[in-house]
Amino acid sequence: MSAETVAIGIDWGTTSFRAFRFAADGAVEEGRRAPAGILAIDDGEFEDALEELVGDWLDAAPTVPVVLSGMIGSRQGWVETPYLPCPAAVDDIAGALVPLALARGRVIHVAPGLSQRAADGVPDVMRGEEVQILGAVDLLGADAATVCLPGTHSKWARVERRRVTGFATHMTGEVFDVLRRHSILGRGIEHAAWDDDAFLAGVERSGAEGGLLHHLFGVRAAGLFGDLTPERSGAFLSGLVIGHEIRAAAPVGPVHLIGEEELVRLYIAGLKALGHHGEPVAAQAAACGLFLIADSLRKGRHP
Amino acid sequence: MSAETVAIGIDWGTTSFRAFRFAADGAVEEGRRAPAGILAIDDGEFEDALEELVGDWLDAAPTVPVVLSGMIGSRQGWVETPYLPCPAAVDDIAGALVPLALARGRVIHVAPGLSQRAADGVPDVMRGEEVQILGAVDLLGADAATVCLPGTHSKWARVERRRVTGFATHMTGEVFDVLRRHSILGRGIEHAAWDDDAFLAGVERSGAEGGLLHHLFGVRAAGLFGDLTPERSGAFLSGLVIGHEIRAAAPVGPVHLIGEEELVRLYIAGLKALGHHGEPVAAQAAACGLFLIADSLRKGRHP
Repeated sequence: MSAETVAIGIDWGTTSFRAFRFAADGAVEEGRRAPAGILAIDDGEFEDALEELVGDWLDAAPTVPVVLSGMIGSRQGWVETPYLPCPAAVDDIAGALVPLALARGRVIHVAPGLSQRAADGVPDVMRGEEVQILGAVDLLGADAATVCLPGTHSKWARVERRRVTGFATHMTGEVFDVLRRHSILGRGIEHAAWDDDAFLAGVERSGAEGGLLHHLFGVRAAGLFGDLTPERSGAFLSGLVIGHEIRAAAPVGPVHLIGEEELVRLYIAGLKALGHHGEPVAAQAAACGLFLIADSLRKGRHP
Repeated sequence: MSAETVAIGIDWGTTSFRAFRFAADGAVEEGRRAPAGILAIDDGEFEDALEELVGDWLDAAPTVPVVLSGMIGSRQGWVETPYLPCPAAVDDIAGALVPLALARGRVIHVAPGLSQRAADGVPDVMRGEEVQILGAVDLLGADAATVCLPGTHSKWARVERRRVTGFATHMTGEVFDVLRRHSILGRGIEHAAWDDDAFLAGVERSGAEGGLLHHLFGVRAAGLFGDLTPERSGAFLSGLVIGHEIRAAAPVGPVHLIGEEELVRLYIAGLKALGHHGEPVAAQAAACGLFLIADSLRKGRHP
């Protein structure tokens, strides 16, 4: 344990726990990860889990800020933090941190999520991704960017002047999963198989006449005719829904992608097929974002 | 049993069996229905089921044509009949009937389905609905019409000069069902509740920016904010997917609806909200279509 630790950041999501110990320049001195997502914590014993996972860090750096982000701040988490309306920058998030007193007599801070409302008033929310988005933009050395976090509930965010100015969530991954597990489409899918060409054919198909609900039935009909084999159907369906997501997101400029490597690869391929450019965010965006918030808190820069 | 029976028609679907005994003018002399859909028939014993359900009709009218339509002609049914490419009229269907010899020494006929291919080659299929569609158009006394059969896999068909010239299937009902049963949206839905205003709000929302995958997440986010109560969320989700279907179908002229009464009521309300006109097909479209096919077969009018 080095004496130079200036902050501790924890990205505590639904299924995983990632902790970072930061040096003064924001470098990660040490990182830890555990499959201790909030769903894995029994009876709300989050404090016990925290002590078990990083208690030694808390002992060794007793006065540095500790910032937690992600679903730990949800209704199902440790403490329900508010949603901060967009636009929101790092300092706004630092100013809306919710303090939490530990039994050991130390206060830690849980980040709010972000929200926004569409023109018709329908809300959208994120919790944890905003930290990664603002971290990614800092890593890019940019003031403005489009950032996408593909997954169960894909997030597309626009950042201007280092503020998240707007975002949209697409239920792409979950829709893919429930269709393939629970709809008639699943019967025609060999789940273990993958085919990049079929994925791209699905992306292409997403622009055809008739809309997503019609295109979904096309997967079934193409299977009946033998045009889509079970080995190709899963990848085609994936390309279809991801194609619909990308077309709806209609990004302007390059898209910076944060996520699991294989999924990022597919989104880059899908973006390319639709005339866009995607590239992975190379480094640890969550760690960077957590450091920025802790640094803002430490320096009292928040409003 | 009257001596004037000229044909027997059976609409034998996945979950139901409906039989009609026809007089010379096409009037239904007698109708029977049973929950004996093809999924309810064990070990492919379709002939036993037929004899049990309408054996007395076959005895009493030993020489009249017997026409079966619906999923009985699918791979999971009695005999797999081909898909007839559009455009297709009653006489084309009559010409593509597949004969089947019963043990009692009589030949009955199973109808083909219809197929078509989109501009990009992706196929679409129907099996049974074409009989209802052509029957409905005859009942309307029209040569051309737009017909919609809402449901698990909604069908939208265009008829010109009494031929089905094109159609599209939307997986609307099934997508609604798997989302409400198996996705995160289900947690925010009180399944027993219904609210017509919420349904119409969903129809309206379907035209907002962002596409269906984004709108689906909006149901979740609106629930988190208390904008959508569990009592309203199911109807809102229903309106959302039906709204997407109607917008994609983009009907020209009135839409003639065939289906379960409550669902037809909702489609008429959704169509109206989007500036279209829908009306139920009043009489038994399946019976009418089956009679037309049997009559064509009887008179040898088919090509």
